[in-house]
Amino acid sequence: MSAVRGALLTAEVEIEIPFQDLDPMQIAWHGNYFRYFEAARVKLLRAIRYDYPEMQASGYSWPLIEAHVRFVQALRYGQLIRVVAGLMEWENRLKLHYLVQDAASGKRLTTGYTIQCAIEVQSGELQLVSPPALLERLKGYI
Amino acid sequence: MSAVRGALLTAEVEIEIPFQDLDPMQIAWHGNYFRYFEAARVKLLRAIRYDYPEMQASGYSWPLIEAHVRFVQALRYGQLIRVVAGLMEWENRLKLHYLVQDAASGKRLTTGYTIQCAIEVQSGELQLVSPPALLERLKGYI
Amino acid sequence: MSAVRGALLTAEVEIEIPFQDLDPMQIAWHGNYFRYFEAARVKLLRAIRYDYPEMQASGYSWPLIEAHVRFVQALRYGQLIRVVAGLMEWENRLKLHYLVQDAASGKRLTTGYTIQCAIEVQSGELQLVSPPALLERLKGYI
Amino acid sequence: MSAVRGALLTAEVEIEIPFQDLDPMQIAWHGNYFRYFEAARVKLLRAIRYDYPEMQASGYSWPLIEAHVRFVQALRYGQLIRVVAGLMEWENRLKLHYLVQDAASGKRLTTGYTIQCAIEVQSGELQLVSPPALLERLKGYI
Repeated sequence: MSAVRGALLTAEVEIEIPFQDLDPMQIAWHGNYFRYFEAARVKLLRAIRYDYPEMQASGYSWPLIEAHVRFVQALRYGQLIRVVAGLMEWENRLKLHYLVQDAASGKRLTTGYTIQCAIEVQSGELQLVSPPALLERLKGYI
Repeated sequence: MSAVRGALLTAEVEIEIPFQDLDPMQIAWHGNYFRYFEAARVKLLRAIRYDYPEMQASGYSWPLIEAHVRFVQALRYGQLIRVVAGLMEWENRLKLHYLVQDAASGKRLTTGYTIQCAIEVQSGELQLVSPPALLERLKGYI
Repeated sequence: MSAVRGALLTAEVEIEIPFQDLDPMQIAWHGNYFRYFEAARVKLLRAIRYDYPEMQASGYSWPLIEAHVRFVQALRYGQLIRVVAGLMEWENRLKLHYLVQDAASGKRLTTGYTIQCAIEVQSGELQLVSPPALLERLKGYI
Repeated sequence: MSAVRGALLTAEVEIEIPFQDLDPMQIAWHGNYFRYFEAARVKLLRAIRYDYPEMQASGYSWPLIEAHVRFVQALRYGQLIRVVAGLMEWENRLKLHYLVQDAASGKRLTTGYTIQCAIEVQSGELQLVSPPALLERLKGYI
């Protein structure tokens, strides 16, 4: 799992590729990969009790500012994939790496990353340092 | 356009079926039809100045309580469709009929309807009669 | 589970409502319900070994010709739902009923149905009687 | 339009952000951006007569191998955006840059790129040099 090597924290989910995610080439249309990444990211954020409801309660939203995907091998109907998310940066922004593997063989199918920044909801101001709401939740891991 | 005959008001949009809406059978996956209906419904609601922002400002949300689709003929890649929305009921709930035609031939491809009810956002209460915010906007048409 | 009462066969799946399915009203956008129905339908079709790959191998496709949804109560972020699909008709067409329940309370949230007809892929001809490929798979249940 | 500076060829489309693309933060969910990019890419590929049906007829598919998005400013309901696609590489692979602007103000909202490689459908072999089917269509531009 070199794609998430060095992660402070990892989380993984298994997803079966559904019919409606496929395009006429019989492979998962690329826009759907963000659904798969999101599932693993949510699992990781829940592990530190900082999922969407808690983000909202903390007064911050965390929109994506950058995303990257490297498609190594196409995903097929009914294929069971394992999506691993790893937390790589947290002090000034939230950077997660993703690894998609075939659940059966462990073969690497996709890698990617996303970067999010905190915005204080009330002021609309972008935060250049991650708010305590996030950092306190990571204390046990750092 | 018998599918919307008797409508108080109609609106139409043209949409080209995009690649990512197709499934491996090379036809638009059925869940996407609500995107097409929505585009025509929004156009109709804008004509009476009661689009989402105005609904929100009026203190009501209008969730769907029922939807129906009859798929007459499949939609193909790049096909240009005309979606007509017609307002059929408004006094107690919002019922719209939809007709999807091939834009070039006028051939009927899909019909359907949606029913929405007003919910007062503050109290969360379902309204059995449509609020004045809607009825006033329809005065010129009734 | 009256919504699927009388079904020849039922299947169920559990789904957690993901963030990207929500709209600005904080509820699952209605077009996503067909994803939930599809998951339960696929499980049912697999139980009789007639999932998409087997449909294709049998020489038939089964496009939807009708769909209906009754939205009883909105779905929220992170809510765990149980989707039950029940096979109601099979001799001339495939009709399934769906019931969406809150997994924790069992409360009924949504009901619906879909109707599919067989089309012989090679000739493109609509079948007025279900092909043996389906009926043979149901022998043990009828 | 520095994001597509140096492009051999550009194409642009205008898109209005629909309700169902928004998330509970009232902004377009990031996975939808690939829909916007795709619309501009298709327009560019049509300009050289190499859209999906022609790709298929040429015996090649062009899956994405890499995608990148930089989200500069969030997209809101009803916002009219202009998506510009520019062809940056074509000899060995297809690389397009994208620029999303607010249609009214011209303000830069998003940039990104996608990279696709040709796969010969019959053999399943990845092509390290773009097939003549693409290069011949670009002759007039090079």
